[in-house]
Amino acid sequence: MPSVILEGPAIKDIETRRTLVKELTDSVSRAYGLPKGTIVILIKENSPENVSIGGQLIVDRLRSDPGKPD
Amino acid sequence: MPSVILEGPAIKDIETRRTLVKELTDSVSRAYGLPKGTIVILIKENSPENVSIGGQLIVDRLRSDPGKPD
Amino acid sequence: MPSVILEGPAIKDIETRRTLVKELTDSVSRAYGLPKGTIVILIKENSPENVSIGGQLIVDRLRSDPGKPD
Amino acid sequence: MPSVILEGPAIKDIETRRTLVKELTDSVSRAYGLPKGTIVILIKENSPENVSIGGQLIVDRLRSDPGKPD
Amino acid sequence: MPSVILEGPAIKDIETRRTLVKELTDSVSRAYGLPKGTIVILIKENSPENVSIGGQLIVDRLRSDPGKPD
Amino acid sequence: MPSVILEGPAIKDIETRRTLVKELTDSVSRAYGLPKGTIVILIKENSPENVSIGGQLIVDRLRSDPGKPD
Repeated sequence: MPSVILEGPAIKDIETRRTLVKELTDSVSRAYGLPKGTIVILIKENSPENVSIGGQLIVDRLRSDPGKPD
Repeated sequence: MPSVILEGPAIKDIETRRTLVKELTDSVSRAYGLPKGTIVILIKENSPENVSIGGQLIVDRLRSDPGKPD
Repeated sequence: MPSVILEGPAIKDIETRRTLVKELTDSVSRAYGLPKGTIVILIKENSPENVSIGGQLIVDRLRSDPGKPD
Repeated sequence: MPSVILEGPAIKDIETRRTLVKELTDSVSRAYGLPKGTIVILIKENSPENVSIGGQLIVDRLRSDPGKPD
Repeated sequence: MPSVILEGPAIKDIETRRTLVKELTDSVSRAYGLPKGTIVILIKENSPENVSIGGQLIVDRLRSDPGKPD
Repeated sequence: MPSVILEGPAIKDIETRRTLVKELTDSVSRAYGLPKGTIVILIKENSPENVSIGGQLIVDRLRSDPGKPD
């Protein structure tokens, strides 16, 4: 505690994940004035079949418009 | 935002999932008076080994009474 | 189980909330083929000071552009 | 409802999981004064690549110090 | 980590809450084989206007049948 | 989507919150390669009566050792 739950698509590259958790931890630690060792981050990976924006599954959205960001 | 997190067993059929997210998005959009494009839905699939009702894992419950709904 | 967690701004009107949970329960019950009595919904109300979109708190966004939806 | 969401590493042994959900259900049922049948528990398994403590992924932490608890 | 999120109605009595978190921590610590100091519990209190079971808000359910457990 | 749920104690100062959501949004946007406008952050404030670490409520921990970080 504090803890951060991050819901997003998969992050393939582990180096990207390393940089991300380091940056998030620094920001959260500064904001609360609490030591970094207390900050827990959970990265949740969601497949495009399980996420909907605007009533449309990401998997269908990518099919109809591959350039659209999710 | 608004966002909906749906915790349940797996939904095998993608057509069922399409209908579900469309209906949920319509209902949530109407309730908040916000455009559908702002509504995010995350479907979380939980295996019967990881869910308990009444202190019993679903996997054990299905074994002892296959007709019981989870 | 299944359960729905709904994160959004406050819904002031209780009649709106009644309609919303009835509709969500119907949709979820149909999608999973499970009786309505098993469906739990938690409505979470978030104040504009505690939600950010695009790096800006809703409270600041409303101030700079009151017509913008959150 | 009430419901318990448990975020942790994988629990390999199903017998351990059985004991855990039984104990949690008993405790929660007593605390709220509600029948056990109303208590739902979701066990969420997180891989060491997706959890960070103190800005370091568990997978890296285990590598640098295998004896350290996560 | 591990962490427990407990969603339920309000627990008025602090002594009940003390016993609850102590028991949950003991159970979770045993199940994962991790020291108690690593276990975080968040108790979330939900008002009867914000919880629905079977498509009916708890606040309405209590009104129509005050003896019914939530 | 992506979305960040941040569980912690209250952050009194709104300027601190502004900086925090700006920094988190920048980091998450970079990691996923997605525009900032898609990133939603929910800050959840937990009172010391509702959080436990190591089986002890924060409110009791602060009482016995006011210098200890939560």
